[in-house]
Amino acid sequence: MNPVSIYPVPGLPEVARGAALDRLIVDGLTRLGLVLEAADVIVVTQKIVSKAEGRVRSLGDVQPSAQATEIGHRIGFDPRHVEVILAESVRIVREAPRVLITETRHGFVCANAGVDRSNTGGQDLMVLLPEDPDGSAGRLRRGLEAITGTRAGVVISDSFGRPWREGQVNVAIGAAGVVALRDYRGDQDPDGYRLQGTELGVVDELASAAELVMGKLDRVPVALIRGAEAAGEGTVRALLRNPATDLFR
Amino acid sequence: MNPVSIYPVPGLPEVARGAALDRLIVDGLTRLGLVLEAADVIVVTQKIVSKAEGRVRSLGDVQPSAQATEIGHRIGFDPRHVEVILAESVRIVREAPRVLITETRHGFVCANAGVDRSNTGGQDLMVLLPEDPDGSAGRLRRGLEAITGTRAGVVISDSFGRPWREGQVNVAIGAAGVVALRDYRGDQDPDGYRLQGTELGVVDELASAAELVMGKLDRVPVALIRGAEAAGEGTVRALLRNPATDLFR
Repeated sequence: MNPVSIYPVPGLPEVARGAALDRLIVDGLTRLGLVLEAADVIVVTQKIVSKAEGRVRSLGDVQPSAQATEIGHRIGFDPRHVEVILAESVRIVREAPRVLITETRHGFVCANAGVDRSNTGGQDLMVLLPEDPDGSAGRLRRGLEAITGTRAGVVISDSFGRPWREGQVNVAIGAAGVVALRDYRGDQDPDGYRLQGTELGVVDELASAAELVMGKLDRVPVALIRGAEAAGEGTVRALLRNPATDLFR
Repeated sequence: MNPVSIYPVPGLPEVARGAALDRLIVDGLTRLGLVLEAADVIVVTQKIVSKAEGRVRSLGDVQPSAQATEIGHRIGFDPRHVEVILAESVRIVREAPRVLITETRHGFVCANAGVDRSNTGGQDLMVLLPEDPDGSAGRLRRGLEAITGTRAGVVISDSFGRPWREGQVNVAIGAAGVVALRDYRGDQDPDGYRLQGTELGVVDELASAAELVMGKLDRVPVALIRGAEAAGEGTVRALLRNPATDLFR
């Protein structure tokens, strides 16, 4: 069996609104001597997707509401940051000093609704999640195909914390052309025991694997994964648990 | 930059109590023409570690308590399975039809205390988590070194569900010779913004990456990760959140 290989794609220029990510990624691959193949998966950090889409806000442009001001003072956040977080959220899930976990409009449960103040391009800037990350992944996929003629998979990743364990891990927030969940339900193990409730979140494992070559400071915002046999038509949207049956909201 | 490569190591024989996993793994690598290198990480599924350690129970040997019987009937589990789950647990975290999430004696929060009825070697057998997974990883690391002369890293993995998202992902339950958390706190991004609360759970990302070549049915119980620059002295124990400050127990 061939190994799965994960290539870092460094050296992309600072991404501004309207940047052609597809072109920047293909240029980055070319510099490495890599030619996109149909079964490849391109993993891109959310940060540069959001920047290219103009999902950036300046603290100076934000008027915090009374609620945002109250929460900000209580937890030690800039109230303007809280204002933007709340605008991106449908619900506060947990609040504690320096912690604000919400459910985003997309349905993600994560810190600060994914509104990030690091690696934004300026100290007073905030980068928001894409409006429709699966859609962003699909557009990027089509853009890569238009340039290269190859329909590879695309995953947009972000690092999320999780309950019970220290440390963030990269997860998928958007995807196109890849498996999201791999379903083993109904399969039998060699002893005839039927696997119950066993689905694997492959798209998140692709995102985590890519992080091994990315690093947190986003100097490597793109990775190419080759050999993972993860082509499919999954979306991250489909992987979000139904809130009605979720035991942890 | 070189890619990270993940090699599946298939073809291990069925593992029984007392099996020399270190020898079986080295033999598997040799069949693939791979020679262990110092910066390599060997990821091993919990299932074969537990089997080698004799952490297997037969349903027929279990007398369920009144509590286990009551819970089993309520949620649709074999009461003898529940009995073993409770014996492995310090606390029930959530209970629902066909769902029993507990905190294990190690401090993991997971379904069924990790007590698994699939791929056990027999329909009435249950495989429990190792008693001390970090210790198991350390022993395997030393065993690999004794055979090969190389001190590689070892991660023991299991697939856990998570709140909010469908799909299990591979996480680390034990580790030796690898980074567990990579700490970016205090680092500054290019704009001078100090990264806050940013640690990455690298050991879990290694486990997830390995799953891309393993598959759920455990036909590939071992993977070799090369090039991840993850050598260190972390443990999974150190990655477990302090229950007192955990917002989701």
